[in-house]
Order: sequence, then structure tokens, then C-alpha cells
Amino acid sequence: MNGAGALVRSLLASGVEVCFANPGTSEMHFVAALDAVPEMRAVLTLFEGVATGAADGYARMADRPAATLLHLGPGLGNGLANLHNARRAHTPVVNVIGDHATSHTKYDAPLESDIAAVAGSVSGWQRRSTSTAEVGADAAAAVAAARDGRIATLVLPADVSWDDGGEPVAAPPPAARASATPEAIRDAADALTSGEPCVLLVGGDATRAGGLAAAGRIASATGAKLLAETFPARIERGAGVVAVERLAYLTDMAVHQLAGTRHIVLAGARSPVAFFAYPGKPSDLVPEGGHVHTLAPQDGAAAEALEELADLVAPGIAPDLAPLARPAMPTGPLDVQSVSAVIGALLPEGAIVVDESVTSGFALPAATAGAPRHDWLTLTGGAIGFGLPAATGAAVACPDRPVWCLEADGSAMYTISALWTHAREGLDVTTIVFNNSAYAILRLELQQVGAAGFVVGDGARARSLLDLSRPDLDFVAIATGMGVPAVRVTTAEEMAAALRRAAAENGPHLVEAIIPPLVP
Amino acid sequence: MNGAGALVRSLLASGVEVCFANPGTSEMHFVAALDAVPEMRAVLTLFEGVATGAADGYARMADRPAATLLHLGPGLGNGLANLHNARRAHTPVVNVIGDHATSHTKYDAPLESDIAAVAGSVSGWQRRSTSTAEVGADAAAAVAAARDGRIATLVLPADVSWDDGGEPVAAPPPAARASATPEAIRDAADALTSGEPCVLLVGGDATRAGGLAAAGRIASATGAKLLAETFPARIERGAGVVAVERLAYLTDMAVHQLAGTRHIVLAGARSPVAFFAYPGKPSDLVPEGGHVHTLAPQDGAAAEALEELADLVAPGIAPDLAPLARPAMPTGPLDVQSVSAVIGALLPEGAIVVDESVTSGFALPAATAGAPRHDWLTLTGGAIGFGLPAATGAAVACPDRPVWCLEADGSAMYTISALWTHAREGLDVTTIVFNNSAYAILRLELQQVGAAGFVVGDGARARSLLDLSRPDLDFVAIATGMGVPAVRVTTAEEMAAALRRAAAENGPHLVEAIIPPLVP
Repeated sequence: MNGAGALVRSLLASGVEVCFANPGTSEMHFVAALDAVPEMRAVLTLFEGVATGAADGYARMADRPAATLLHLGPGLGNGLANLHNARRAHTPVVNVIGDHATSHTKYDAPLESDIAAVAGSVSGWQRRSTSTAEVGADAAAAVAAARDGRIATLVLPADVSWDDGGEPVAAPPPAARASATPEAIRDAADALTSGEPCVLLVGGDATRAGGLAAAGRIASATGAKLLAETFPARIERGAGVVAVERLAYLTDMAVHQLAGTRHIVLAGARSPVAFFAYPGKPSDLVPEGGHVHTLAPQDGAAAEALEELADLVAPGIAPDLAPLARPAMPTGPLDVQSVSAVIGALLPEGAIVVDESVTSGFALPAATAGAPRHDWLTLTGGAIGFGLPAATGAAVACPDRPVWCLEADGSAMYTISALWTHAREGLDVTTIVFNNSAYAILRLELQQVGAAGFVVGDGARARSLLDLSRPDLDFVAIATGMGVPAVRVTTAEEMAAALRRAAAENGPHLVEAIIPPLVP
Repeated sequence: MNGAGALVRSLLASGVEVCFANPGTSEMHFVAALDAVPEMRAVLTLFEGVATGAADGYARMADRPAATLLHLGPGLGNGLANLHNARRAHTPVVNVIGDHATSHTKYDAPLESDIAAVAGSVSGWQRRSTSTAEVGADAAAAVAAARDGRIATLVLPADVSWDDGGEPVAAPPPAARASATPEAIRDAADALTSGEPCVLLVGGDATRAGGLAAAGRIASATGAKLLAETFPARIERGAGVVAVERLAYLTDMAVHQLAGTRHIVLAGARSPVAFFAYPGKPSDLVPEGGHVHTLAPQDGAAAEALEELADLVAPGIAPDLAPLARPAMPTGPLDVQSVSAVIGALLPEGAIVVDESVTSGFALPAATAGAPRHDWLTLTGGAIGFGLPAATGAAVACPDRPVWCLEADGSAMYTISALWTHAREGLDVTTIVFNNSAYAILRLELQQVGAAGFVVGDGARARSLLDLSRPDLDFVAIATGMGVPAVRVTTAEEMAAALRRAAAENGPHLVEAIIPPLVP
């Protein structure tokens, strides 16, 4: 068996059943091997950033890694931004990067570049396969490393792929995550029962329903304020789940949420820091005199720790669960409020929401808090272009669940070709593009960082760099060009009708919602 | 003056007059500074790969660097593939990468990543500005470094940008490139006049008309075979210029071109190596027993060296110049031959051709060799997604020249949002998309690397990864959605009419040419 065959069979034997692929010449034997192993689902994307974002979305929902297939250093570069987001989400991903044959490297051919340096910036584990006999073991080691919530990158030289003598190897079963120590549980319990103002900040696996139920019991019993990290990888929400407010993105709002707190107990979340620095505003969001207690680290068994803690401080207490409470269906022209109300009124049971709505999603948390139970995936690393690819992967992972991809116009354009993969794979993804013809977030940030004072006159030249009009993007045309049925809506009634039609028909759809920007 | 203001003014004082920008929060002061300095043209792109590819195309035509404005590590990642191409082209580029404020770095906020490691993979020079007082000097040093044909990367922390105390600094005038040594010229002359079979391989600045004229004189006088490197950054061609065949991309064809050669004289080109390794085929293309003589290195003053050499070995000899000789206008359904003939028949005087046509451009060299004089830019680093961005930059550099962007369908989708920038800036770019519904090059490579033997039955699963149908891409719809007027053509007559209409009207156009793939 050649190296490529051993690699594909090793991935499969280790529980990796999907490969999001952008192959090139150096990956042709891998492609041929995929052909011979039909149990491995190969999904073609038209850009590596779609492949890596899809692997992120897949693993967030499947709780196990997918593979990517990337073409040398430039292919990795194209996929880097969404690998950055995956790294911040602690998502398991296995990258297979085809490279020149070992004997070819010294010639510095045009596609040669320093793959290891670039991969190192996002990978928790990386290795270059140096022999066909070892490639099976290398693949198994990559899967084992990824399962710890890391990006694992395996560089596969073309000759290692095409030479004979490979053997499939399966990764050992995953180990359980380390439990919280009794000391950490005791320390958190002491803080929460001290009578001083406390925040219980949840992230990681504590934003699933089980962890939230335990956190909710603790909050009810101790009076602690329950908050989730600003950008959770995956949070369960809606009717029957404990509702939790997220720590705000804007520094001023986050400072307000945490004001007066004496103890912050971290369960799967990091100690809170500002997303960006702003002149005269804090980077460290822990209030002065506040103490931070780590019950479980970001990649720890946070839900389990919360359950132990709840049994200690909240015995017999039941959590408050969110009731089913949809907003009334609005009418008339769409705006940032009504566009969210339509979504809250119609979000289907069991939906997976991929949220890259940026400023246009301002009203979404409140509008959807009482929708039927659903999962919500967020932009963990701030690198835009995440939504459409992640929706791809989520839909591959959960073919029986509707995926709603909520996309800002500017962000959508980064990885727009994901729509083609939605069409090719027949994925049940409904994309809602919030078209406000602006990078509205940057209009806000121009003010926030104090840069607005430096523009001249009306600042027309600066504003033009934050503006997406001239020409307006027509997402209906763009989606149609990639095989996704699409419709433009300007009123709540039209949007509701479009979403109902999309829900009635399996497969991808796009709804372009024209709305005014949050920041004019 | 704040740091951003000093930086923009330093770039301008150093001859950098265009900035291709994808700003984010950390770049807001830079955006405000651009507003106050109208002499600096800021061009918004919707994806960093468009910005970096545009900077490459700009500098290839303007012979001086443009700046890019990128947002932290993920923005650099998105721009990496086209920086890789620029590095291989020895294009001068100045990257400005906004980063978190210095005081914010230690908090490892979500957008934090190892910018230096990633930038190092493409940059010949890089620096992080550490003080506002020095940022002007840093910018001048970056421009000076870039002028040597390198990627220069300057990381700009937000506080260095917003603090006061900056001073503009101008880079010193560029130094002349090192001349060839008398020994190198003598050695080349000896080889060329030895009577043994010689190849004169030109690249770098020797593929402009002046260098080619000197090379043509040498070839005429000595009988040496004149070849250009496989993927020149910029080559002048057409009527009145010395015609030169390029070294082939496919190893077998290149081996054939070089067979029997005893001496290869390099003028601005590298010693020839195969693009990829293939089982049983050579990586080093120098024939056995062949000698390589370096007249001028890739980034050297190769044209000047050729002129000196020509005066030595070809005094009084005039070069053979290509006559004006367009192909006859074909008729009927388009195929890989006729699509090129239409282009050869209509290519306007002074055109800039950006060529990312891959297999569909197979017949272009012959069909355009006798067109009116034009420049031809190629994919130097093999990282697809180059064409539409490079055309953007070339059109900004040369607003009075028509730009024809020849794009393969698969490659076009990598950086398709460049079309929006064509529309916003009103660039005179005519994009011809060769839509053959396939990654046809990979069908060829699947055979070349010997992987085809590993597929099962008809190889349908492998073929589906090399196939762009199901659904077919509709480039007319996609272009229309980004504000570029577009038309689909299936016959030579329709294509000619569409190109004539595009030529009659300034501004961007797209012509989608439906053709059968070179490799079925």
C-alpha cells in the first residue's frame, strides 16, 4: 500500500471520516487514495479558507476532527485565518499538507516555502512525514493530538505519499479530560459563598446544556452573576436551556457587566480581556481588587467540574430554564431590530446557528433567547470569513439539522465560494446576508479608538474605506452564480416568507436582507 | 504628528503613492491618516489576497512598490499566497500590518498570533515599530529594502500609530543594481562562442524589450538558443520585440527543449528546475554534462549585462524583431485553439496581459506572438488566485493602458472579489474567464504523477475533486453581482463582439468563454 493509502486508512481507523479538500499536484496520490476508500467523505471546496473553516464548524458539532487537504505553503496560507479561529475555539482539526517530494526540496522550486514556520503559528502539533513506513503512525499521532482541542498539522511529501510500504495505524481511544482538583472546587465554592459579588464565567464545554444547567443551579443558589465568554465556540440556547448573557465585545459594556465584582470563577473560560486596546481603556477586564479563580481551564472538563461544584453549593436546587418565548413577527421595512425579530420568530427546533452577523446581529441574542432549543457557533478568533465555511462543516456533521448562517456582507465576501460547496453537497444551509453596504463595525471602531478626530472635513476618503457601496454588492446574483437559490428582501413580511420557503425545501438557500447599518 | 501620520507621509516621501487596504480596528488611525494625505491613493479591497496581489501587479508595471494595509496575523495569512507569488517575482512590496497596542500583547487577546513567524516566510525584510519617534525611519527603511526586489513587512502596533511625536522620513534614492563582473561577461562569451550547443536563458529585467534586444543580438551572432524562464514576472512581447520561447512547465517538454545543451547562460534567470517532482523524472533540468554560467542573477542588472555581452560577441548585429502578424479570426464554437486566436486577433496595442489561464491558455503564446507590442505578467509562484488581483494593481499603475486578465475558472474563484474593486475604481480591466468546468491541470497531473493507476473503476470519486461542475459556475451572474458588466460567449464570433464592445467602453468588463477542457 502506498503512503497516501495508509494515511487515508489511518485517518479513517482513527475516527476521521470527512476530508475538506483543495488538492493540487502534490496531493494527487491522496486524491487517488480517497477514491479507493469510499468510507472517507471527500468534500471539495474552491478555496482553502473554506476547507479549514468547514473543518472547524464540523468538529464543533461532531465533537471529533475532520481532515483538511491543503496544497503546500500557499494553500496553508489561504487556510490560515480560519485555522486561527479554530485554534481560539480549541477545535480539533487534522491538516494534511501536501509538499514537494523530499528529493525536490533542495531545488527551491517555485512553490517551495517555509511550511513549518507558517503552520507553527496555528498548530499545537506538527510533523513532517519522512518515510512511507511511518506515515500511518504519523496520521494516528496527528488525530490523537487534535483530539486534545488542537490543530494538528501533518506535512506529506509527495514521495512519501507515492512510495510503497505504508501500513494503516489507528489512534488509541481518546483519554478523558483532566478533572478539576478538589482544591479548585473548594476554592470556587468558598468564593461563591463568601457573600461578596461573584461572576461565574463559563466557556469551553460548559456552554453546552449540561454545563449551563449546573452553572444555573450554582447561580440560583449563590446569587452569582452567570456570564458566558464573549465568543463561545458552541453554546446551547433556547427553550429548556439555562439562559446566559455573554460578556460584551465592547470594552465599556464589558466593564459595566463586571463592575463591582470581587470574584470571577472561570469554568472553561479565560480571565476576561478586552478584544482590542483603546486609548485610556483597560485591557485587563478584571475589576480592581477582583480575584480570579480557575475552576477549569479553557480546554478542561468544565461541565463536569460545574456539576461537582453544584452538588456542593446548590444541592437540591433546580436551574431556571428559559421558556419558549418567541418575539412577535414584525412588519414593515427591515432594520437591525426587526431583522432579528424575524429570525427569533422563525428559528426552527434543533437549528445550528453560525453567527458572523457582526453589528447587524446586535439584537439577535435577545430576539432568539426564547426560540426552540438550538446551538450557536461564534467567531472565536476575530478573523472574518468564518461563517459560510463553518456552516458548510456544521451541515456535513449534522445532516438532519437545519443550519442558519447569519452573515455580515463584508465578512461574507472573504470566503463567498463556500456557497458553491453548499450547492454541490446539497447542504441544508440557509444563509441570511445582512447587507448594510458597510463595514459598520469599523465606523464604530473609528470612533472608539479616537481616530475620528484625525479625519479631514467630512472624512470622505476615510469613510470610503469603510463603505461597501459604489457599487452595491448583489448577493442574489452572486449566490445564483454559484448554484444557490437566492432572494432579496426589504421588509419583515418578505423575509418571513423567504425563510418559510427555505425551510420547506431541503438544500441551500440565501436570503439577502437589505437593512440600514447600525452605525450610519 | 501621530505615528500613522508620520508613516503615511514617509511612504509618500519615499515614492510609495498607492496603498491597497483591508483595514480593521487596529488600523483606524492609519485610515484617518490616509484621509488627511490625499496624495496617497487608498484602494479598498474586500480580501487581503486581493490587496497583496494588487501590490504585486502594481509594482511589476510601475517599477516601484505599493503598500498594503493588512489587519494583524489573520489578514497577513489571507494575503500570504499572493505575497508568495510576489516573492518569486522579486517584486518590491511594502506591507504595513496593524497589530495590537504594545501594552495589549501580553493578554493574548483573540486576534493575537505570531505575525513575525508568518511574515518571515515571505519577507526579505521585516521590522516591528516600537516607538512613534522611529516609525518614519522604519517606513523609509522598509521602502529602501523593498526596492531591492523584496517583500518588506512593517508591523505597526496600534499605540505606535496613535501616539504623538512622529516625524516623516524619506528613503534615500535607490542605488543602482550591481553590474555584472568582467569575469562573468568573459565566461559567458567564451561559452557562447565555444561552438558547443548553448542556451541563453533570460529572466528578471532581461525579459523587457531592451534586454531581449540584446539577447536577440547574441542569439543571432552565436547561434545560441534563446529561452525565457518558465514564469517571468513581466515579459515584453509582440511586434517590434524579440520573440522568445519560454521554458516549458511540463518536465518532459522542458527536457526536450534543453536536450543536448552543453552550456546554459543565465541572464536574470535561475538554473532550470522542474516545477514539481514526478516519479522517474529529473528535478534538475540541466542536461547531464551541461555547464551553467551565471551572467547575472535573478535580481541583478541582467539587461545591462546582456548589452555589454552583445557588444562583445555581436557587434554590429541587429536582433530579429517579431513582425506584426495576428492570427485569422476563427469562427464557430470556442475551443482551446480558437479562444486564443480570438485574443491574438484583437489584443490591443499597449495591452497589459495578466495570465492565469493555466491549461486553457495552452495556445496563447503562439496566437499572440505577433500581436501589437504588449506586456505579459505570469504566475511566478504557482499560488493560484493571482490574476484578478494583479490585474487590479496593473490597472492602477497604468491607467492609460488596457489590461486583459486571462483567468482560469478555478483560479478565478480564489480571489473573485477583486471584481468589485475593478468596479469601484473604474479600472480598465477586461477579464476573460475560461470556463471549462474543471481543474483541468489536475486531470493532467493525476496522470503525470502516476496516481491515476490507483483510482478504482472509473475513478468517479477522484474525478469529482477535479471537477467544477455540479453546479456549473455562472461567472456572468457573479460578476454582475459585484458591479462588473459581463457576458457569456460560446462562439468565436460572440467572443470577438464582446471584446470589441469592452474595448469601446472604458472600465471593467468580464467575458465568460465556455470552452471544452484541454484534458477531458
